[in-house]
Amino acid sequence: MREEIGERAHHESNWVARTHIPMSRHVLTLAFCIPLLAASTRATAQTDPLPSWNDGTAKKAIVDFVQATTDKASPKFVPPEERIATFDQDGTLWVSHPIYTQVVYCLDRVPAVVKTKPELAKVEPFKTVLSGNREAIARLPMADLVKILAATLTGMSVDEFQTEVKTWLAKARDPRWKRPYTELTYLPMIELLKYLRANGFKTYIVTGGGQDFVRVYAEQVYGIPPEQVVGTAGGTKYGYRKDGKPFLTKEPKLLLNDDNAGKPEGIHLMIGRRPHAAFGNSTGDRQMLEYTTAGDGERLAMLVLHDDAKREYAYGPA
Amino acid sequence: MREEIGERAHHESNWVARTHIPMSRHVLTLAFCIPLLAASTRATAQTDPLPSWNDGTAKKAIVDFVQATTDKASPKFVPPEERIATFDQDGTLWVSHPIYTQVVYCLDRVPAVVKTKPELAKVEPFKTVLSGNREAIARLPMADLVKILAATLTGMSVDEFQTEVKTWLAKARDPRWKRPYTELTYLPMIELLKYLRANGFKTYIVTGGGQDFVRVYAEQVYGIPPEQVVGTAGGTKYGYRKDGKPFLTKEPKLLLNDDNAGKPEGIHLMIGRRPHAAFGNSTGDRQMLEYTTAGDGERLAMLVLHDDAKREYAYGPA
Repeated sequence: MREEIGERAHHESNWVARTHIPMSRHVLTLAFCIPLLAASTRATAQTDPLPSWNDGTAKKAIVDFVQATTDKASPKFVPPEERIATFDQDGTLWVSHPIYTQVVYCLDRVPAVVKTKPELAKVEPFKTVLSGNREAIARLPMADLVKILAATLTGMSVDEFQTEVKTWLAKARDPRWKRPYTELTYLPMIELLKYLRANGFKTYIVTGGGQDFVRVYAEQVYGIPPEQVVGTAGGTKYGYRKDGKPFLTKEPKLLLNDDNAGKPEGIHLMIGRRPHAAFGNSTGDRQMLEYTTAGDGERLAMLVLHDDAKREYAYGPA
Repeated sequence: MREEIGERAHHESNWVARTHIPMSRHVLTLAFCIPLLAASTRATAQTDPLPSWNDGTAKKAIVDFVQATTDKASPKFVPPEERIATFDQDGTLWVSHPIYTQVVYCLDRVPAVVKTKPELAKVEPFKTVLSGNREAIARLPMADLVKILAATLTGMSVDEFQTEVKTWLAKARDPRWKRPYTELTYLPMIELLKYLRANGFKTYIVTGGGQDFVRVYAEQVYGIPPEQVVGTAGGTKYGYRKDGKPFLTKEPKLLLNDDNAGKPEGIHLMIGRRPHAAFGNSTGDRQMLEYTTAGDGERLAMLVLHDDAKREYAYGPA
């Protein structure tokens, strides 16, 4: 396996003022978590916390960062309670190309929604989605996509939504890889999550995707508990069932659009501390990485570049 | 010290349907964290995790709950990752009578705000606050209080706000007790927080007070990190300073009113799991306690009643 990753340390202060992230300087070639690879790397795994990473500048930057921030004798030492590391999800921790998994979920949910509201069958964009015409679906404008997200992600109870997502994840398969979406994670990044946690870092997902959606599987897939998933979040409404039991309904009211500037805003809302390390892959992660590196003391910011069409997809730099 | 506390276990299912909490059944007499008390209880502290609690039904209910939920052989066992306990702050963890500490902070900040915006000096409610007339200030209607909160809690950067609160907390003294507000915590509840944490529970504050305000001191005062403080929260806005450094400004835009039904809504937004134990003291905590006890498995909900005018204040039941 070959990986190179660019790193941007705190001292390169001119970076935060730039409009565009120089993505070409941040290169990482990724591979899936294929069980065979785990077997071949087992021998070195005991001593090397990042066995699927090449011994390059990227790996060295990570190891140097972790050693400096966890060594009490180092001037770069970071107290354990301040060791926060944030990760974008789509394209950083798992495959998001050519279409976000959550969008696939929403499109798949449309028939069930139309079943409860038959009047939608003749209304756009639901009519197009029900037609199954992939090209037409891909051409739907953003406003129509928002209608589909609202119809499939809100209106039900929080518990019902969790059950629906779990059921879908168990059955759905990626059309190219013929595997559950929850298996399409990047092994080097999973190793990185574990390595940081083993060194006292609290790992968070900070995703433009739906907070409630990602929380359903984040613990099982990434070892990240629901309370450490920050994402695009809508309001809920407290109410009572006929038997008096209270429940929460997912409302079509946006509280946090956790992308671009929404990422540092979401980090402040949900965590209340500035991360010491942040990892992303797109312009939507720019502000999160800027905000991270602008803090005092040692900071690490990295971008994943997708340039391996054979083992994944090649679509970067944007 | 005498303490009795009522407890309401999950099986008493008729409770959740009631409109009013029968507070008279939930009795706890509280005392401050006076160092002398710590000395007198040191001998038993090694074996008794709740040395300042009387050996009554309240203490027994807590110990039974913790033992049942942490014993793998118990049918009531709760996996460590699901052990979430939420605490109201004002009147539950520290003194909030006769006036919320954060409101004192906001009133104290008015002169500094008027200094930067002199035109406010002649405008109500700022004119009344500047007059120092306590009776007139106490009579200010809620709409005026909201204006004061907005003027003193928003418009500055997140970092500036933290510095201002820290500076104020270091100097401010409670007029009756002549001590810093951060010392006016309830020793039995501090013991309870530690006892739950020692048994794998993640302790959260879920307060109607300002999330950013409580986060400033929660780690030092309660051992609760900022990311485990859920409170009334406003939006922030990401921007850049002249030198290009990014920063967040506190905006006068309410995202979460974390009181009453807002408490379970805030718990879902910020934690994403239903608590197994919840502690409050007022009708503003009713929905949080209902939501907690309505979950499957073992749940514990308790209310603090203030009935000791000599050592604190007597103002319950509401």
